[in-house]
This record gives sequence, structure tokens and C-alpha cells, in this order.
Amino acid sequence: MARSWTELDRDALTSRYREVRALTQALSSPLSDADATVQSMPDASPAKWHLAHGTWFFETFVLRDHVPDYQPFDPRYAFLFNSYYEAEGARHARPMRGMLTRPSLDEVRDYRAHVDAAVLAAIPMLSREARTLVTLGLHHEQQHQELMLTDLLHLFSLNPMEPALFAGPAAASMDLPDALHWIEGREGLVEIGDEGRGGFAFDCEGPRHKALLHPHALGHRPITNGEWIAFIEDGGYRTAAHWLADGWAWVQAESVDAPAYWAQGEQGWTRFGLDGRQPVNPAAPVTHISLYEADAYASWAGARLPTEAEWESAAQNIAPTSGNLLDGAACPRPHPADATTSLTQMFGDVWEWTGSAYRPHPGFRAAPGAVGEYNGKFMSGQFVLKGGSCATPRGHVRASYRNFFYPHQRWQFTGLRLAKDL
Amino acid sequence: MARSWTELDRDALTSRYREVRALTQALSSPLSDADATVQSMPDASPAKWHLAHGTWFFETFVLRDHVPDYQPFDPRYAFLFNSYYEAEGARHARPMRGMLTRPSLDEVRDYRAHVDAAVLAAIPMLSREARTLVTLGLHHEQQHQELMLTDLLHLFSLNPMEPALFAGPAAASMDLPDALHWIEGREGLVEIGDEGRGGFAFDCEGPRHKALLHPHALGHRPITNGEWIAFIEDGGYRTAAHWLADGWAWVQAESVDAPAYWAQGEQGWTRFGLDGRQPVNPAAPVTHISLYEADAYASWAGARLPTEAEWESAAQNIAPTSGNLLDGAACPRPHPADATTSLTQMFGDVWEWTGSAYRPHPGFRAAPGAVGEYNGKFMSGQFVLKGGSCATPRGHVRASYRNFFYPHQRWQFTGLRLAKDL
Amino acid sequence: MARSWTELDRDALTSRYREVRALTQALSSPLSDADATVQSMPDASPAKWHLAHGTWFFETFVLRDHVPDYQPFDPRYAFLFNSYYEAEGARHARPMRGMLTRPSLDEVRDYRAHVDAAVLAAIPMLSREARTLVTLGLHHEQQHQELMLTDLLHLFSLNPMEPALFAGPAAASMDLPDALHWIEGREGLVEIGDEGRGGFAFDCEGPRHKALLHPHALGHRPITNGEWIAFIEDGGYRTAAHWLADGWAWVQAESVDAPAYWAQGEQGWTRFGLDGRQPVNPAAPVTHISLYEADAYASWAGARLPTEAEWESAAQNIAPTSGNLLDGAACPRPHPADATTSLTQMFGDVWEWTGSAYRPHPGFRAAPGAVGEYNGKFMSGQFVLKGGSCATPRGHVRASYRNFFYPHQRWQFTGLRLAKDL
Amino acid sequence: MARSWTELDRDALTSRYREVRALTQALSSPLSDADATVQSMPDASPAKWHLAHGTWFFETFVLRDHVPDYQPFDPRYAFLFNSYYEAEGARHARPMRGMLTRPSLDEVRDYRAHVDAAVLAAIPMLSREARTLVTLGLHHEQQHQELMLTDLLHLFSLNPMEPALFAGPAAASMDLPDALHWIEGREGLVEIGDEGRGGFAFDCEGPRHKALLHPHALGHRPITNGEWIAFIEDGGYRTAAHWLADGWAWVQAESVDAPAYWAQGEQGWTRFGLDGRQPVNPAAPVTHISLYEADAYASWAGARLPTEAEWESAAQNIAPTSGNLLDGAACPRPHPADATTSLTQMFGDVWEWTGSAYRPHPGFRAAPGAVGEYNGKFMSGQFVLKGGSCATPRGHVRASYRNFFYPHQRWQFTGLRLAKDL
Repeated sequence: MARSWTELDRDALTSRYREVRALTQALSSPLSDADATVQSMPDASPAKWHLAHGTWFFETFVLRDHVPDYQPFDPRYAFLFNSYYEAEGARHARPMRGMLTRPSLDEVRDYRAHVDAAVLAAIPMLSREARTLVTLGLHHEQQHQELMLTDLLHLFSLNPMEPALFAGPAAASMDLPDALHWIEGREGLVEIGDEGRGGFAFDCEGPRHKALLHPHALGHRPITNGEWIAFIEDGGYRTAAHWLADGWAWVQAESVDAPAYWAQGEQGWTRFGLDGRQPVNPAAPVTHISLYEADAYASWAGARLPTEAEWESAAQNIAPTSGNLLDGAACPRPHPADATTSLTQMFGDVWEWTGSAYRPHPGFRAAPGAVGEYNGKFMSGQFVLKGGSCATPRGHVRASYRNFFYPHQRWQFTGLRLAKDL
Repeated sequence: MARSWTELDRDALTSRYREVRALTQALSSPLSDADATVQSMPDASPAKWHLAHGTWFFETFVLRDHVPDYQPFDPRYAFLFNSYYEAEGARHARPMRGMLTRPSLDEVRDYRAHVDAAVLAAIPMLSREARTLVTLGLHHEQQHQELMLTDLLHLFSLNPMEPALFAGPAAASMDLPDALHWIEGREGLVEIGDEGRGGFAFDCEGPRHKALLHPHALGHRPITNGEWIAFIEDGGYRTAAHWLADGWAWVQAESVDAPAYWAQGEQGWTRFGLDGRQPVNPAAPVTHISLYEADAYASWAGARLPTEAEWESAAQNIAPTSGNLLDGAACPRPHPADATTSLTQMFGDVWEWTGSAYRPHPGFRAAPGAVGEYNGKFMSGQFVLKGGSCATPRGHVRASYRNFFYPHQRWQFTGLRLAKDL
Repeated sequence: MARSWTELDRDALTSRYREVRALTQALSSPLSDADATVQSMPDASPAKWHLAHGTWFFETFVLRDHVPDYQPFDPRYAFLFNSYYEAEGARHARPMRGMLTRPSLDEVRDYRAHVDAAVLAAIPMLSREARTLVTLGLHHEQQHQELMLTDLLHLFSLNPMEPALFAGPAAASMDLPDALHWIEGREGLVEIGDEGRGGFAFDCEGPRHKALLHPHALGHRPITNGEWIAFIEDGGYRTAAHWLADGWAWVQAESVDAPAYWAQGEQGWTRFGLDGRQPVNPAAPVTHISLYEADAYASWAGARLPTEAEWESAAQNIAPTSGNLLDGAACPRPHPADATTSLTQMFGDVWEWTGSAYRPHPGFRAAPGAVGEYNGKFMSGQFVLKGGSCATPRGHVRASYRNFFYPHQRWQFTGLRLAKDL
Repeated sequence: MARSWTELDRDALTSRYREVRALTQALSSPLSDADATVQSMPDASPAKWHLAHGTWFFETFVLRDHVPDYQPFDPRYAFLFNSYYEAEGARHARPMRGMLTRPSLDEVRDYRAHVDAAVLAAIPMLSREARTLVTLGLHHEQQHQELMLTDLLHLFSLNPMEPALFAGPAAASMDLPDALHWIEGREGLVEIGDEGRGGFAFDCEGPRHKALLHPHALGHRPITNGEWIAFIEDGGYRTAAHWLADGWAWVQAESVDAPAYWAQGEQGWTRFGLDGRQPVNPAAPVTHISLYEADAYASWAGARLPTEAEWESAAQNIAPTSGNLLDGAACPRPHPADATTSLTQMFGDVWEWTGSAYRPHPGFRAAPGAVGEYNGKFMSGQFVLKGGSCATPRGHVRASYRNFFYPHQRWQFTGLRLAKDL
């Protein structure tokens, strides 16, 4: 699953472990037992499941495999909280995750505390290989932090009372940003993919390899809600010519006419978020759109989506810890663009759909064993997204990071940046 | 909905109201917020919904309509907790009831307390008509007490940890009962249906009318688990000739080979109940069977199901408050037959499938208005069940009571008694 | 399957056999190979299948079982053309019947000729029991004549070119009939069900038994298209209060707003028939309605559907060979009512939905063996229809005849007659 | 749709038109009216529809648009036989194509003759642009020739009588071929895509562009049935670790355990083809496998699928008219490998799944207008296949040709060739 990185020393690992696990706790602190239990759709998981699954990962791959005499908190949990690791044996069917009213949220918190204590006690004795697994587990935990937030958003959106999980952040500027600028990209052979020299990366990010870029430019910022409203008002959702055939079928079957969570009222468009229902900010990047919608917009705009290589090449000189990413237990919300006319908002705000299918990089080999099931097995039917979102924990994302979803999925904070041929 | 009965006087109504509502509270007391929130299938509702829906009934049809200046606890609840009263306006889609993590169980309990206080304060001033609605609401509440228990049983059965909601009752006798005796029924014209002279009845129980009985006999007790195991072992579930065509299709499509909640292990058959997984008691009535299964058994046994009129005529001289019915917050469980060879276990233990479709009695007219939607609109595709079960609150059932379910449904405590032509 | 009747003598049986089989041939004569092959929905069968299945019945139950040394036309046909006789072994899955482009229509006609020759040669030697099976086979063939016509109607209705299978009959009067008269029915104990003394009857029609009628009246004629249009125009399809709950769900899910095959154009309502698309005749009985629609209409009209016993009792003095029934290969079409104000159009025109579930008559026992699977196994979830339609072969129907369909089905010529309590 | 090619002169176009259209006729000549009408699954179309749709293309884009005063054969056909050209207006729903028992096969043949006469009469007068459309129509017709054969194969496979459409070809050698040899491919920058200088190409084949190849080798021939049986016998279909996650879900849901049309009997594996059921030839390339199966095989074999660029680069020096392609109305069947150890069977035999998603080439722009809907709109969720099959008309395929199907589809003659990194 993870291919190479400089291991953290034991002290740094201890404090990183505390920090990451504490954020998960903080994110889940406003949840009731019921909030944490319900599964709103097969694509989503209950918050309690996220809390337990990340813990199961440490308990299984670190404590069970590397700590002599470790006693599992509850031997039945392995069946309940394994996700898709076929090599780890039978597991609870995904669409039934929402039936688990027991164990309770408090019991799952006890499970977390039990495992945290055991991991923290073990770190000073862990081998290099086991410390690598702790690091991997922390990145895995961060992925589930983001999923937990977006799954909760989906769940809460189905409640007619439209509850807010977090207090809304201070109102953002609604001043419309400047028109889109085009930033010319590199041309010819570039290198992309994980370098394998430094920090953590998932296996699918490597190997480092040469890629060929054709002449192109990228939009300097993501497409905004205001621009999206223009697409809607121009009949974008009703014009087959803009759409991929599968996308058009999806629009018709699901009666899609706006991004997820949007509603149109007398005061104009609103959107539902973890801060409840709020006006759509025309200056902020559009989000909760599918690849089909992103592609249709690009087609309508006479442009296209960037390839992964174009995006990644452009992002390599930008600090991946900069941008509007998740720092604490607050409502994630994409920020409006500022006055910058150079490449901006590459990291954070919204995951950017690329036009690249999620397939292996040249030379890719999955890691062996159960941990190795992680990424390679999902390499059909999905598209790559880059850059992280406002719900991605700061420190989790980087230029080579490859997120992937099916083209109809849009419950993540997904948006788009345009590209064009030169 | 309810056609006629002797109204309770105000004091009796007050104490009846306290008693019925207290039982609901007691039944729900072992529930966590999560237990009370999840919907395990579209046929079932969350416990929280049952708790709120019974309360909504009083708030709407008694307080809103008959108590001046009553302020609703939360005006949004009417949308959430209406069930199928089309005349009461839009309502939350049934299969989405499990998405309501808010309001919480505690908030729903506050809602109950708010409405209870208002109803109890109002009873001394209520008109005869409004008192009638209170009585109706109490019988409605009792229906939902039983549904809440069976819905929870279904939910808990989907949890691989198989949690018990109640401590199991003391072990019952497993001595096999005597062979089945046949009790000859009345022949010729009899009167059935609600008499309209006395206690409460739902509208569909009347009017009182003549029915014609042909020569027949009833089994003196329900079919037992031991007898059912003989059916299984004789290939009952694999022999098309015993089954209705729809039943055979259901058996094949759902891979049914035993009553719901049964499993076969090294120690023989077990069943899951609200007391967890326990051995099947061969002496107790079989339960959690569909009409299809009941009919197939009768066919295999060379018998048939009783008609509603046969059953009701036989039950008219038996006290409906006798038998194994629900008295408090304990695990409902059918009891084994005793040594009686006369007609026994007619009330309580298990709902008995009849061979009669649920259609109107001659002369039936639905009550006007929203309350009148209650029973008549369900008169297609369902079969009548009689006699109540171990999960039916004592005092709720009577000879004329008509329960009804679709022929494939079996999450209630459903069983069968044989009949034959003479 | 068939319980009792006076056997036809051998000569009469020979000529009856020729006559019935010839009508099937005539009905199928306008069909192309393709018309005869396609299955338009799982409820329907291809015409070719009907032609072969009726033949399989004679080949299996008469020739195979009663004619020594009979050689089957093609031993593979038993698998293809068995319908639901589980006891006869494996059979081709019903929804896949439309995949059988081979054997061709001509080969199926050869199969018919082969079996006809063998049956006609055998009749002089057949035992009484085997002759009974020939008679049963002829009634079975007549059932499939009607089904073949209605299945073809359904198929042709899905062709945007709306082809006509038969030339339309001469235009019928469109004069509106008189208002509905109410005809008082018998009260008290009556006898219904097959008498077992005379002609053929299916097993489910017996035994003859007493039934109790409550005071009631029947409409003197079926409800007309004109009356149905008034129901539509009064919002009948949009008013939940008129509908059974299952019916209302069906109306919403299927977007039903008129009888099957109706369309509304600038010239008013038209309907598609085997004579193509034609104006709706307001004077003719409404047809192609479901039980749900029939029940909703009755509710809207302040009436109800007749019970089977009410209908049958009233029909006992009317010649079942009278009325608008099928005599030859021409377009079946319900006729407008004439000026009669006594009970009329009881036989023919449209099958009349009753409010009675299709359940066994008191004392019913299915015939043993494969033939006995015929009727008893369908006794759940369906309603009884009485009287035959314009597509029912003359001579096939009688007062005790019990047709049955699910409450949502409406591709037969189904209509309604009102009843009311007195 | 088509981007550039040297137009055929008028005489050559005339004879090419006659030739291609005659092959379609020949392929359909063994069909009955019923064979030509039935649609066996939503992915497939009736043969009659293929015959009419190719004709509709000429009638619409050549005759209607370029021949003054052309009278359509039947104005209703445009609705029936348009496929997915949204810009051409409403069309008959795809899954309902099998309901069209009228027009008959003979009428569709008349339609073909009518349009053929008009096109042949018009060619001498047609503009260069219109002649380009004729050429495009001929390539479109060839695509439908192959689809017609594979759709018929699917239909016939659902008939328990397993009819043969064509006489089987003479038995092929069953001698096992040599072990697989690895052929090293080019490395570094290569050029692929349609050159735009010569013959016909579909728009999606261009533009010509540079691609970067990493060190790799290709198997010298496709994987054989014999090799596939080894995969089966090693538990390939039961081992999750070999499979993409979507593929594993598909294997479980569809109970897949062998290529399509295979069955295992006492004599070993057989396969159904247009020549009926025959033994599997272990020496011939495996076919009727999905991308999921191809990928699992490669994973099991420690290899991978070729990328499109690797495959295309290797094929550029091979004559695309060589190989086992379709020349006439005979049973398509993959041939066993001969003793060659250099790259072989690149064209013909089986379409080879690549590991490349079907996405636009760099610089791709869809052609404008209705014809332009052809290829670009399918660029999500599908994988590229290369090289043509034994059912691909000779002259239709070339190195740059991009076929595409969803990863679960396997009713085409699909197979695989391995690749590996060096």
C-alpha cells in the first residue's frame, strides 16, 4: 500500500499519532450515538464505523502482528470493522453497516482508547517495519476523517430538519473574482509520480516516471458557483450535446439539475452543508459535482478537464500544506478566490476532477499481502481527482496524491479546473 | 376508524392513558439512541418513530383539533411522524424514516412528556367525541407497542453480535405436548363482527353480521416447533406440491428453509429473539412464519387454514384477556401448550394466519375523514390474522379483532392452527 | 383440474376438437413469424408459445399417457412448452419464452398438425378418463385463445407504428346509454359453485355450496367509457381518498391516469386495440382497467364491487352462451349497452372484477397429480373476475366460472359493474 | 465522426458500396423473420434493427441531406431506427427495439433495396462532402455487421435447442501451440493515432500524436483456451486477490466461472458458437471474456495488459488486412496459433483488451453536428480494444482503430494478449 518514505523517529511518531487521532475525536465530538450509527447510502459508512475501522487497522496490522501477547479489545470487531481486505477474511456486508446499533458510540470510543494506549505504549519498541505501518495507519485515518465528514453531510442532508453539525464560519466575501486567466503548462517530457525519496506516499502514487505533456494551459483557479449558475441558466443540464452519454443517462435517470445539496428558492440558490442550509456564494468554487457535470461544463465552455500529468506537473512547485485544508473540528467550506491571477487554489478547497482514468502508473506493482489490497484493486471505472479539499486534513495531500471516484459520485467536495489545448 | 364503544369515564380514561403510555416508555427503556433510530427494512420503522408517531396521533387528532390554543411541541414533527394519513398532507417517505438521527431519543421523550401533560390536563374538559379519539389513540398506541418490539427484533437480528434487548425469561418446559385434537366447530348461520354494543373496536371489525359456517373442526392448539421440524425434515421447503405458486416463488427467490430467525447448528435448531439466540423449544408454537409457510404446512398435513369466521365463532366464548399476552417490559415468548385437550391458546402466544383475505365485512363503511383512512385502505392483497400474540398488549385484542399482513411477511409473532372439513 | 361433467360422446368430442383447434389456427392466421415469437412482458407469452403449449397439453396428458407407442413430435418440446406444472419436471423460464426464435411458427404449426392427427386418430379408442382429458384440454386451449389475443394486443401496443391485427368491425353506436339502474339481488342462503351434474367445469368452480347473501343491488350494466371519463375529469386518478393504499402506490409508481391503451389527443380520447388506434366509444363498457381502478371508481361513485356470490347468484338464470363473446377470427370489442334496463351484459363484453379474493370454495380439494396443479396453487393475492369478455370463446364461460388476476393487471378485457348495500 | 481520408473516386465508391451492403445481406440470409426481430438483452439489438439502422444512416445523412427531392421510404422509420443521435430528435427506446415485429424482415429488406437504389443512382452526382458521408456510412455498416453477428450469437445462446446459424467450418488443429514468447516493444517517444493522410479513420483515432513508451514486452500471441483452462483449474475464478474489486463483485453477483458460452460436461469444456455447441479448442485464442477476466488472468500470470500505445506501436508495421477476419457469410471462429514465434494474430481472431481507458487522444475534437456525436460521447467507463476479431469485416480495422466496451461486457469476440515491464 505505501511504497517508500522517510520513517518518523519514535518521538515524532508518538506525537503525530496523538495529533491525528485527536483530530478524529474532535471531529466526532458533536455526534450523538444515533448520528454515528446510521448509514445513509451504500457508498457511505456510519461515523462509528469510520471511528472503529481506523482503529481496527492499527489493532490488526500493528498490534496483532507486531506486539506479542496483545489481547484484542473484542475479537468480534475484526468481522465488523474490516472494510475490503479480502485477505483478512470474511467481513460484515458493506450495505449492512448501518444496522450496528451495538456496539455504541461510547463503546467504540473505549475501543479507540484501548488501542491508542497499546499503540503508544508499543511505539518505543516497534521495529522499523511496524513503525512504517503506524505511519500508514495515520494516513489511512486521515482519509477516513474526510470520508466521515462527507458521509455525515450526506446523512444530515436527508433529514428534513436540516440540522447543522458545526456552527457556520464567518461569512465569506461574495465579491465575484476576476475572469479566468489561462496559465500555460510545461510541454514535453516531465517527471511525475512519487519520488520515493522522502515523505509518505501511497503505493499507487509511484513509481516516479516520465510523462509527455502536449501544449496546454490550465485555468488559474477553479470554476466558481457564479460561473456554474451561468451554465445552469444557459440550459446546461438540459442540453444533451454537452454530456457524455453515460452522464446524460445519469442526468435523466436521477433528474439532476444542480450540484448536490443545492436548492432554489425565492432568494436564489442555497446549499446544504455541515453548517446547515446557507446561500450559495457565487465567488466560491463550485463543489459536490460529478465528473459527468464537470465534463459537461468543460464542454459547454469550449474547454476540457486537465489530465492528471498536466495537473501534477503544475502543482509540483506549490507547497501542498498551503491552501484551504482541514485543521480542526470546524465546518469545511471552500473559500472564494482572491485577486491572484497566477495559479491558485491548487491544494485545498475542492478536489479537482481530472480527465484521467484511475489506472496504474507505468511500472506500478501493488504491495504484497493484505495491506497491498489497498489501491490497485480499484483501478477500473474511476477517475483521478487531485489537490485535496477543505475537508482534507492538512498534511495529508501532495502533488502526487491520487484520489479516485466513479464518475457519478459527488458527495465529496469535488469541483473542477478547466484546461485547454494550445 | 373506530366505530362504536362505551366511552370510558374521565377518571378511567385518565388512568388508562397513564397505563398505556407508561408501558410504551417501559418497553423503550432499554434502548440506546442508536437502537431507537435505525430502520432495518422498509416494512419496519425505527423505535423512535413509533414513540413519536403515537404521540403525533394524540397531538393532532386530540390536542390540535379539540384543545383551544394548544401549541405544538415542534411544528415540523407533523411532517416527520405522520404515517399514511394522506388527508393530513405531505409526510416523510417511509423508507427514509431511518435517516432521522435528529430529533434524538431524548427529544422524542420530551415530546411524549409534553403531549402527555397536555392530554392529561385536557381530559377533564374533553367532549365525548374527543374522549373517543383518546381511546382510539390508546388502541393505536398499543398496536405500535407490538410493532416496535417486532421491528426491534428484526433490527437486532441483523447485528452479527446478536444482542439481547431483554433478559431471557426462565426456561420453559420442553416436554412435547399431546397429539393434536380436533374440535368440532359450529355449523350454519352464526354472527360475527363487532357487536357495536360495548367496548372499543376498530371500524373494520364491524358491522356485526351473519356468516355461514360449513361443517369443520379446528386443531385444539397451534402447531408446535417440534411439528414444524418434522415438516422441514420431510422436505417441506423443497416440495413444490405443498406450496401456493407465489409461495414457491418466494421460497426460491429468498432461499427460505426455516422460520425467520432460525439457524441450524451442531446442537440443533436455534432461534434469535429479543433475549438473544436460544434453542428452539419443540413444545412451543412455531412463530415467525409467513402465510405461504402456514399454507404449505397445512397442505402437507392434509388440512387447511381456518377461515376468519370459523376462528372468530370458536373464540367468542373465550375471554380475550386470557392467554399469553404482553403485560410489561419483558421478552415476549410463545409458551408451550399444557395438557389441555380442549380449544387452547386462541388468544396470545402467536397471531394465527387464517385462510381469509382481508376484505370488508358485509355492510362495512369506512369512517369519514383522516382518521377513517385507517383500515379500509389496506383491503387488498393481505390475509387476516386472529388472536394476538405474546407481544400484543393484554386488553388490546378480542375475537372480532382483524390483524392483516401480506402473505410473505413474517417478522410478527405469526403462527398457525389447522382446520379441516368434516 | 376438472372435477366433473358429462363426457362428450366420441363423435361429439371429435367435432368439438376440430372446432376449437380450428379457431386457434384462425386467430393466429394473420401473424408473422416475428409477431408470434416476441414476449412483450413477463406476464405475457408469445403467440407461438400459446400455440405450442395447448398442443403440449394434449401430447403429454392424452397421447403420452394414453396412446401406446405414441412418438413425440420433438422430445425437446416438453421442456420448452410446459408452463407451470412442477410435477412435469424442469421447464423453460417464463421470462425467457421470447428468446425462442426457433422452432419457427411454421414448425409449431407442423407440431399442431402432428398432434391433431394423433388425437383425432386416437379418440375412437380412448377410455372415458382419457376423453375427459381431451375435454379438459379443449377448455385449456380456449383459455389460451383469449390470452393469445390479449398478449398480442399488449405487444402491438408497444410498436410505435401501432399496427392493426384485424380489420376493425363496423362502427358501433356511440349513443349514450340510459343512466344506471339498480337491480335488487337475492338475499339469504343461495347455492353457488359448479353443480357437478352436467357440463364441464374447472375444479376450482366447485363444490356446489351454500352462500349467504346480504341485501344488495347490482348495476344493470357495466360502467361505460363515458362514465369513466367523468371519473377522470373529476380528478379520480389524483385523489388518494378513493384508492386502496396499494392502488395509490401503483398509480403513483406507474404514472397511471387512464385505462391501458388510452391516449388523449386533440380529438379527445383514443384507445389502441387489435384494430389499431380508434376513438373511445363513450357508450361501450370501459375495459383494460385494474382492480385498483375498478375499486377507486366504485368508491368515487359511493358504491362497491359485487361479491362473487352476488354476481354468480344473479347470473344463474342467464344463458352463458349469450352475449358478446368470441366466435371467430375477428377483432374483439366490447359493445355499447342497448336500451335494456334489466340486468344486461353479464356474459361477454368485459370480465367484471369482483370484490372477492380468489380463494377456495368451502370443501374444495385440488385434483391429484400434475393436472391438479392447475387452479388451487394460484389462490393468493388475486381477485375473482366473472362473466367472460368479448375475447372469451363462446361456450367457454358460465356463471360458476372463476377467472383471477392480480389487482394491478389490466391487459385482459377487464371492466366493472357496481354493487351497493340495501 | 470521421476526420480525414482520401475519398474514393466515384466508381470505386460504387463498387465498395455494393460490396459492403451485399455482405450485410449475405450475413442475414439464414435468418428467419423471428430471428431478426428478437432483442436478447438491452446491450444487443435485433438483426432487423441493424439492417435498418445502417440504411437509415444513408437515408438520413446522404439522401435526405444531399439528394434533392428524395422521398423517404417510410417517414416513421427515422424514429424507429435512429440509435443515439440526440441531435436527430426523439427515438425509440433502446430496450424496446425487440418489440418491433413490424416492419417485417422482408419490409426491411425492401427498405434496404430502396435506399441502395437511391444511393447508387446518386453517387455520380454527389459532392465530395457527401461522398465522404457515404464512405463513413460504409464503415458504420461494417461495425453493425460485427454487432449483428455477436448479437445473434447471444440470442441463439439463450435458446435451449442451441440452434446453429451457420454450418461449422472444418475442424481446426487442436495441437497446442508453443509456449508464449515475449517480444520486446519500442521504448521512448513514438507516434500513434491516425495519420490523417490516407484512408478512412473515425474521429476518435486522431489526431496523430506523440506517446511515451516505457520498457516493455508483449506476448507473441494471444492467450489460448488451453492456458485459460489452467487458470480455471488453479482456482482463478475463486481467488479474490487476482481481481479488480469491481471484477470480483461481478464474478460473485453473476456467478461467473468460465468465459461466456462455455459449459463443462463429461467430455470436458464446450462452447456455443454460431455453429452450435462444439468442443473448446485448447489451441485457439480464448474469447468472450470480460476486461475483468482478462485483467485477473494477467494478474494471475504475473503480467499485465498492454497499453493502447504499446499495442498500436507494435501493430504499425503489420498489414491490418491480414489475419483471421470476416470475408463472407460463414461462422466466425478464432484460429489456433501456428508455429510462429514472432508477433502474430495482432489483427483478427479476437479483440484484445488493453489496459487503457477509452479517453480522447491529446488534441481530440469531436466533429460538429449529429454525425459528430458518434465517438466522443462514449469516453467514460470503457476500455480500449484493438486489432479486430474473426467477426470484423476485412478492411474495417487498422492499428489506430479504437474499439471500446465496458469492463463487464463479453458478448463480442474479446480476448487478451499479455504485456510486461522490462
